[in-house]
Amino acid sequence: MSAPDSTALLTDRYELTMLDAALRDGTAHRRCVFEVFGRRLAGGRRFGVVAGTGRLLQLIEDFRFGDDELRYLRDERIVDAETVRWLEGYSFAGSVTGYREGELYFPGSPVLTVEGTFAEAVILETLALSVLNHDSAVATAAARMSIAAGSRPLAEMGSRRAGERSAVAAARAAHIAGFGATSNLRAGAEWGVPTMGTAAHSWTLLHDSEEDAFRAQIDALGTATTLLIDTYDIPTGVDTAIRVAGTGLGGVRIDSGDLPTVAAQVRRQLDALGATRTRITVTSDLDEFAIAALAASPVDAYGVGTSVVTGSGTPTAGMVYKLVARQDAAGGWVPVAKTSTAKGSQGGRKAAFRTLADGVATSELIAVSDGFDELDTAVEHPGSRALQTTLIDHGRPDTAALGDAGVAAAREHHMRVREELPLAARALSRSDPALPTVYVDAA
Amino acid sequence: MSAPDSTALLTDRYELTMLDAALRDGTAHRRCVFEVFGRRLAGGRRFGVVAGTGRLLQLIEDFRFGDDELRYLRDERIVDAETVRWLEGYSFAGSVTGYREGELYFPGSPVLTVEGTFAEAVILETLALSVLNHDSAVATAAARMSIAAGSRPLAEMGSRRAGERSAVAAARAAHIAGFGATSNLRAGAEWGVPTMGTAAHSWTLLHDSEEDAFRAQIDALGTATTLLIDTYDIPTGVDTAIRVAGTGLGGVRIDSGDLPTVAAQVRRQLDALGATRTRITVTSDLDEFAIAALAASPVDAYGVGTSVVTGSGTPTAGMVYKLVARQDAAGGWVPVAKTSTAKGSQGGRKAAFRTLADGVATSELIAVSDGFDELDTAVEHPGSRALQTTLIDHGRPDTAALGDAGVAAAREHHMRVREELPLAARALSRSDPALPTVYVDAA
Repeated sequence: MSAPDSTALLTDRYELTMLDAALRDGTAHRRCVFEVFGRRLAGGRRFGVVAGTGRLLQLIEDFRFGDDELRYLRDERIVDAETVRWLEGYSFAGSVTGYREGELYFPGSPVLTVEGTFAEAVILETLALSVLNHDSAVATAAARMSIAAGSRPLAEMGSRRAGERSAVAAARAAHIAGFGATSNLRAGAEWGVPTMGTAAHSWTLLHDSEEDAFRAQIDALGTATTLLIDTYDIPTGVDTAIRVAGTGLGGVRIDSGDLPTVAAQVRRQLDALGATRTRITVTSDLDEFAIAALAASPVDAYGVGTSVVTGSGTPTAGMVYKLVARQDAAGGWVPVAKTSTAKGSQGGRKAAFRTLADGVATSELIAVSDGFDELDTAVEHPGSRALQTTLIDHGRPDTAALGDAGVAAAREHHMRVREELPLAARALSRSDPALPTVYVDAA
Repeated sequence: MSAPDSTALLTDRYELTMLDAALRDGTAHRRCVFEVFGRRLAGGRRFGVVAGTGRLLQLIEDFRFGDDELRYLRDERIVDAETVRWLEGYSFAGSVTGYREGELYFPGSPVLTVEGTFAEAVILETLALSVLNHDSAVATAAARMSIAAGSRPLAEMGSRRAGERSAVAAARAAHIAGFGATSNLRAGAEWGVPTMGTAAHSWTLLHDSEEDAFRAQIDALGTATTLLIDTYDIPTGVDTAIRVAGTGLGGVRIDSGDLPTVAAQVRRQLDALGATRTRITVTSDLDEFAIAALAASPVDAYGVGTSVVTGSGTPTAGMVYKLVARQDAAGGWVPVAKTSTAKGSQGGRKAAFRTLADGVATSELIAVSDGFDELDTAVEHPGSRALQTTLIDHGRPDTAALGDAGVAAAREHHMRVREELPLAARALSRSDPALPTVYVDAA
């Protein structure tokens, strides 16, 4: 039998074979510090948004090896009998610090720091990266769209353009980064994200006439509903909608055509019919650029699909999980880093701060320690904000980061810290990060 | 309590509100034909590869509403009490025909055709599209890489760059489209995909020296293993690897640098050391273009990460789920289609064939029926191959398409039908589809 909801095999084979080899040579028990960071902001983004943290904490709780998982590893001879026994008792007992979910990040930001034995920490690599890379890519794209939309509401409607489980994570990440609602019901049930929806073209086509379809929708959902008016001819659709619903109709949705032109025409027609408070939602292949281009159009709300769930051209955040410090055989700490190429990284444990001047962020300050125990991630640098918090303390997750409450807190945190960004960070074009990353000695 | 593994809420809210409205006005029971197709091949691909079908059949089996799902829908007032009762007894009892998994597709190909009442078919829209759009995008990218790699083996190693569950689906889709193995253990356990792995840089950094790390890996995994030789200095790494393992070392992996240059240097050095049969695996940010550019380099195997799991620039296939025919109140069949814009589609039920001349595909022939019952999807057009098969027959899935066996059959089918493609389809540049789509009257 599988451990219920086991996440243990959502991992790369090499992590378990490294574990196997490390249990043989004794290095498995060396204490290690692994760090998750991005070398750059993928896609020429000005900032990144951390998302997935609350999901990850739960998935780490579920990282247990049940009979099914162990049998597979044994039958496929992926690890030996000793390693199977070790995995049988596995639950992560180390500690994790990291950026709060919803926080901004920049190149080199220590988004997550995992501390424990090599054995217990190395096997979380794939899971941590899968969650943070996917969710952060979506949240970063969503934040750009949210900035472009200004005060107009955004709904995430992209489930059909993402893997069926990633769609739920994407809805959650988009909500944290500013989207008001999602079409995805599981994101509502599991994470408390508000859900919304209108109707599909199939609804109109099912009926013998557009009028029949509109009438049935209003009978079921009331006049506050939103009618999809572009199945046949748009002006006829608008006429029919108001004739059937009256001028109190909640909204109409346009899903095709040149949206600035069509939205203006529909607004004029609605106003001429007296439906001055009927809202216009547009939904056709929008991304942050299309949303920005509609700023002067009479649009009341945006529904975004493909582009938000696929990170708007950048479907993965490109973070890596690297060993940055470990104990040697004598128990002393050694900072480590790959050195062969431009892919090199900065060894040592890190504490991160955002420096601010008059409330505006000025740099990502990263204090690097060659040692270990002496580094305090909560120290207040004058005029700066400490970015890391304890997410798992010796195996115990921060319960405030879990579930619905974690999502709500992450969204609130994101909206607050986004206000600290310099104006240049709000530009949509590809460029350099909005803040420089500054490394200092923690000594 | 939730239905075990329920997939019922992996859907858009509007499907259930349309169901709710249709149950009120009686149209819920009209028989309907929905079709999944792509209007174009996203990303300027020459062909698409259908993947996800076997997963989808299982997920449709699991599309059941348990107490948890129903309580959420009731508490959130998404549907009324009658609809809750209807959903309680739901299991899909209609029929599905479609392209076999692994089959190629082109613009307009009826990849999946779902027949049933409006009620039972409309609520599968999001799930069907999530699965097929994601998996087909990955399989299409994977097929391009597989063609570029020729006879050299490819391994999928991108789990960390995809949502944790999509990663499993991506490994499965890549295997169907030509990848020999994956790093993802769950894909091995759940779908029978062969797994592989080497070691990470953290393995070397964990040890007091590269030599210690190599020795420990060989002690655990034998000399047939693959050593990662670019943590520090590559020539030193190669020397150390052969000194420790001997000239019988299975392979070395290079994960950085200008790969054509580095691969040639490493090959020369290995040969000079007598390790003429030690294989070179390269793994740094490869996509189909980089693989093609390495064709003349002494590389023995490729490991591909980000680009395959994200569809190499095209993370979703862009298929849609459209109502194409329905019964009217009198029980007669009516072909239907949205007509307002260029997003229009072709109404009517369809039968699809690939025409061939001397074994080479020449067109995607789609016979369109205004009627319904008279259309035979299995009819043999001379010199053509029927593309559709029964996937669900009145609620009963084709068991041969499920599980490990379904994956193996899909891979074998893909490899066979790919051979039918005209040579132009093998080019990697963006262009038009390799085959024209030809619509004919089924009459």
